Amino acid sequence: MSKLTFDITMSLDGFIAGRNPRLEEPLGEGGEQLHEWVFGLRSWRELAGLEGGETNRDDEIVRESTANIGAVIMGRSMFGVGDGPWDESWEGWWGDDPPYKAPVFVLTHHPREPVPKLGGTTFEFVTDGIEAALERARAAAGDKDIAIAGGASVAQQYLRAGLVDDFQVHIAPRLLGGGTPLFGEAEGEALDLEIVRVVESPKVTHVRYRVAR
Amino acid sequence: MSKLTFDITMSLDGFIAGRNPRLEEPLGEGGEQLHEWVFGLRSWRELAGLEGGETNRDDEIVRESTANIGAVIMGRSMFGVGDGPWDESWEGWWGDDPPYKAPVFVLTHHPREPVPKLGGTTFEFVTDGIEAALERARAAAGDKDIAIAGGASVAQQYLRAGLVDDFQVHIAPRLLGGGTPLFGEAEGEALDLEIVRVVESPKVTHVRYRVAR
Repeated sequence: MSKLTFDITMSLDGFIAGRNPRLEEPLGEGGEQLHEWVFGLRSWRELAGLEGGETNRDDEIVRESTANIGAVIMGRSMFGVGDGPWDESWEGWWGDDPPYKAPVFVLTHHPREPVPKLGGTTFEFVTDGIEAALERARAAAGDKDIAIAGGASVAQQYLRAGLVDDFQVHIAPRLLGGGTPLFGEAEGEALDLEIVRVVESPKVTHVRYRVAR
Repeated sequence: MSKLTFDITMSLDGFIAGRNPRLEEPLGEGGEQLHEWVFGLRSWRELAGLEGGETNRDDEIVRESTANIGAVIMGRSMFGVGDGPWDESWEGWWGDDPPYKAPVFVLTHHPREPVPKLGGTTFEFVTDGIEAALERARAAAGDKDIAIAGGASVAQQYLRAGLVDDFQVHIAPRLLGGGTPLFGEAEGEALDLEIVRVVESPKVTHVRYRVAR
């Protein structure tokens, strides 16, 4: 069966975005630098429709993470701003040819017709919760895997519900001092993980974890 | 010159101790498990005056971290409970033969005569701040290094003051969901680090960082 997974870059102090995210600086103060390791990679540039780029161990990691994804789940704020009903004239952050190349299921409280894009990406809107979204993503993914694209609270909800099979954290060597925590405070028991793999690189440390059952 | 360093175990979600630390459970709920990787190691047992123990990569890491330490700095709560004047009849958490085997400088607002112990450990009390403590530790350490033993806020103060040369975080595969954060919210700019070394082991991921200058 296909697995539910996510890949996310976190600062050593646990933040995935800096303070004061806003339209002009969606990753907050100092947040964009967390992701610098990825922008120059060939695999990343390919997804963005660009040529060239570095090929190194980081590049292999990104390629591996994106190669077998058949469906994507994301929170509403990863698709578009706000939490009220949709302004349907606005089609989200991702432009005409988003990097997902697969059906994307957006968790929201407000129904909306699907938004098809180029390259295989279609945004579909799910109003009946994380398990329903996972079911639809599984049907769409077939034998391929399902990725949670974020944000942090969506990843955390799936993790705490015991639905995530494994996930990879790219730990960036930076202390942000504040911002959006990946994990942070959470209700409930401690959650034990197993280390699946560690990959060292000069810019970031890639650690894949499995939830201990 | 000798370097200022620290070694600390942190959960993947950034905590060094669980919720509700108290005398009977000083590492808080679920906090002791973070440190399980260290208790069975030969190097650790030697410091505690015990025989036997595992020798593996984790053991080498601990041995390396403790081999060249000539002085230690710690916050008051690492020595003993409370933040009022000292009850001098009480000589702290560490028993007669503490694992430090070196002079330990305790940061406090309340002066106290030194407390000598067996095996080379003497607790000395410093009331005039982190730089004064570092100066005294440097004088005591000679060519050897100086370790910050904790807690988190002391490590963070030295780090933010630009006084730490390098540090090693042992990232435990566990989500605590709450407790004492190692870094957490901090005033001031983001701090860039360099990855010095990553060591993989089944129980914990050891990453050594240097503060980028």
